[in-house]
Amino acid sequence: MKTNLPVDASRIAGIVNGLAGITEPDRPYTRRAFTPLFLEGRAFLDRRFRAAGLETRIDAAGNLIGRRKGRKSALGTLMLGSHSDTVPEGGRFDGIAGVAAALEVARALSDGGIELDHDLEIVDFLAEEVSIFGVSCVGSRGMAGILPDGWLSRVQGELSLRQGIVEVGGDPSRLPALKRSDIKAFLELHIEQGPVLETGRLDIGVVTAISGITRIEIIVEGQADHAGTTPMDHRRDALVAASRLVLAIEALATEFSKGEGHFTATVGEFSIEPNAANVVPSRARLLIDARAELQPQMEKFIVELGALAARVAGEAGVTIAPANVISDNHPTPGDPLLLSTLEESCGQIGARHRRMASGAGHDTAWMGRITRSAMIFIPCRGGRSHAPDEWAENDDIALGTAVLFDAVRRLDKQLQEKV
Amino acid sequence: MKTNLPVDASRIAGIVNGLAGITEPDRPYTRRAFTPLFLEGRAFLDRRFRAAGLETRIDAAGNLIGRRKGRKSALGTLMLGSHSDTVPEGGRFDGIAGVAAALEVARALSDGGIELDHDLEIVDFLAEEVSIFGVSCVGSRGMAGILPDGWLSRVQGELSLRQGIVEVGGDPSRLPALKRSDIKAFLELHIEQGPVLETGRLDIGVVTAISGITRIEIIVEGQADHAGTTPMDHRRDALVAASRLVLAIEALATEFSKGEGHFTATVGEFSIEPNAANVVPSRARLLIDARAELQPQMEKFIVELGALAARVAGEAGVTIAPANVISDNHPTPGDPLLLSTLEESCGQIGARHRRMASGAGHDTAWMGRITRSAMIFIPCRGGRSHAPDEWAENDDIALGTAVLFDAVRRLDKQLQEKV
Repeated sequence: MKTNLPVDASRIAGIVNGLAGITEPDRPYTRRAFTPLFLEGRAFLDRRFRAAGLETRIDAAGNLIGRRKGRKSALGTLMLGSHSDTVPEGGRFDGIAGVAAALEVARALSDGGIELDHDLEIVDFLAEEVSIFGVSCVGSRGMAGILPDGWLSRVQGELSLRQGIVEVGGDPSRLPALKRSDIKAFLELHIEQGPVLETGRLDIGVVTAISGITRIEIIVEGQADHAGTTPMDHRRDALVAASRLVLAIEALATEFSKGEGHFTATVGEFSIEPNAANVVPSRARLLIDARAELQPQMEKFIVELGALAARVAGEAGVTIAPANVISDNHPTPGDPLLLSTLEESCGQIGARHRRMASGAGHDTAWMGRITRSAMIFIPCRGGRSHAPDEWAENDDIALGTAVLFDAVRRLDKQLQEKV
Repeated sequence: MKTNLPVDASRIAGIVNGLAGITEPDRPYTRRAFTPLFLEGRAFLDRRFRAAGLETRIDAAGNLIGRRKGRKSALGTLMLGSHSDTVPEGGRFDGIAGVAAALEVARALSDGGIELDHDLEIVDFLAEEVSIFGVSCVGSRGMAGILPDGWLSRVQGELSLRQGIVEVGGDPSRLPALKRSDIKAFLELHIEQGPVLETGRLDIGVVTAISGITRIEIIVEGQADHAGTTPMDHRRDALVAASRLVLAIEALATEFSKGEGHFTATVGEFSIEPNAANVVPSRARLLIDARAELQPQMEKFIVELGALAARVAGEAGVTIAPANVISDNHPTPGDPLLLSTLEESCGQIGARHRRMASGAGHDTAWMGRITRSAMIFIPCRGGRSHAPDEWAENDDIALGTAVLFDAVRRLDKQLQEKV
């Protein structure tokens, strides 16, 4: 590990471990947004924010914000943060490491007697993970002024999202006025959730873009026949056809992943009908999750997918409807100034780094709609995430925090020139 | 069509159409065993049996039996029949055609003033289809003395199978004594439920064997990873591996189907976990339904399946546990004397026929445990079955009935010589 970092690794560990203790006891680590445990985690963070001298508030979208006034507040705000909610049976670091790092930057500034010109805000975004209401990035979308109105009526049990935001201290009635225009830069530290940094023995990934995510549904229609009486060469088996499709999609995605920019495609949802032991499957449904750093690659993939489905349909004697694009979020490139600043900071701190894309979605993608935004990745063991065995070394978080610390100081100066 | 058949096609149509009218009105054709509609169908059949001069009773296993006394009852019983229950949204002919044919044989004998030496019994077996209790061939297993005791305790809602048998008029307490030893031959007519006869423009399939059915479960274990952040070449995708397996199983079964005896294998049940759009599938479950006319073929298939699974596991970097044989019913060959008699009858009646195996299970498989048994198939349109569009021409049923009629008269003589 690096020594003489301008940040305190043990304080970071204190936040990570403190939140890890606030979990459903028999389902570690579970602290889903809108639950009592989430509010307990928030109360813990609020105490730590205030102990660090931050002035805390909950904004209209339910984000917890700690503010450190700058010498020239009129310059606007630099914001750092991530999220403290988890998926069910998730990990100790996804989101949490970024909140702990952001808070530590504020503490380290105070320890060093460093005043910034900009205001600095540390944020814990509400419900970055897919929440009990089936939607994600509630807080960052709210702050960016693009939380769909209709989402507020989504209901889980007796609770609507609108009421849920109220219960965490937000105010949905003020959402239309929330969209922030004072933020001059947003930075997020996050675990990579993939194996690239660990495999490459690197400290930091400077995230060039958050991949776009396109979800595509494909329906294969064959024919239900008796499994015992229908000869093998008389069948139109939807599962056999769908299996060809799965393999062809994997081959196509592998080919794309060797080209320009990050690319993955995954058949994550798959089901057949009638799903009965003695019936030849008549129907299969595939849901493809495709992610591209570069939008032209995604568009090319969708075209080739159509050709591939037509070929499989012809070969297997089944019907495959035109691919149905269920959702389509385009890539969000990192801000060039922030990327180069982060690289300078890596150099300053002595962190081995590379540029890379994020295959996962993050709050940064929504913050990118309203301000210069970028993120850095730190390694995590085996690329594991969203699982109890998710692990990041505290020293790695601390090194990333030092990069953020350095970048904030640089940006505090640079963004005056740019204003 | 053949004219001058010794049977009356319109009476057969009367039974088929009469039962078709006894269905859940908005779900034709549904008349599941143990339901009020089933009892209504049974009451209809009982009236027609008695109108044909048969003496009716319900045996201990809940089978409806119509009896026509022979001149020398001590010789034993010749039995004909099938079943009147349906699957949900099933067809008008599966089972029903065989009951109608059996009844028509009795009527035609009476019309012709023909007395047999053997007693003749016409049977409607209870619950041939998978019933509300999750088990099939309840009546024929009961008559063969091999209905598992434990099955009687199976429950659907408030009803046990034991009570269900009582409600149809059976007597589970007398099941241990039911096993019949007086039956000298059993014959069943059934629709083919496959396309072979139609494709070959044939009238009759003389069923050489009822295929054995082996159900094999395979579990593929990969690794759950983030669909966006895990590079394509770092994955252990259980769905991709399972898709290879599906294709390899289909290829292997197709190869076996070109060899000796009927052979099919179908992956009818297939599911993945966690089945979430953004997670690389970690687990897949396949249930294979394999059917073989010849048991050595089945054993060879299971061995080759194991090798194939090991190969896929190695190539795809997943774990595949040894195949788990869930159930294993061996083939039931048709009785050689009955098969040659049925062929002689086909020749006599002028029916174009071939030998073929049954890929589906039938009551005949269980009757084969206690007496000489065999069955004949008649064509059905497009091989469709277990669906509302199941269709058999009434003339084809009549021709098959004439074959049964002729065979019964031959057996009545032959089985005296053999006794």
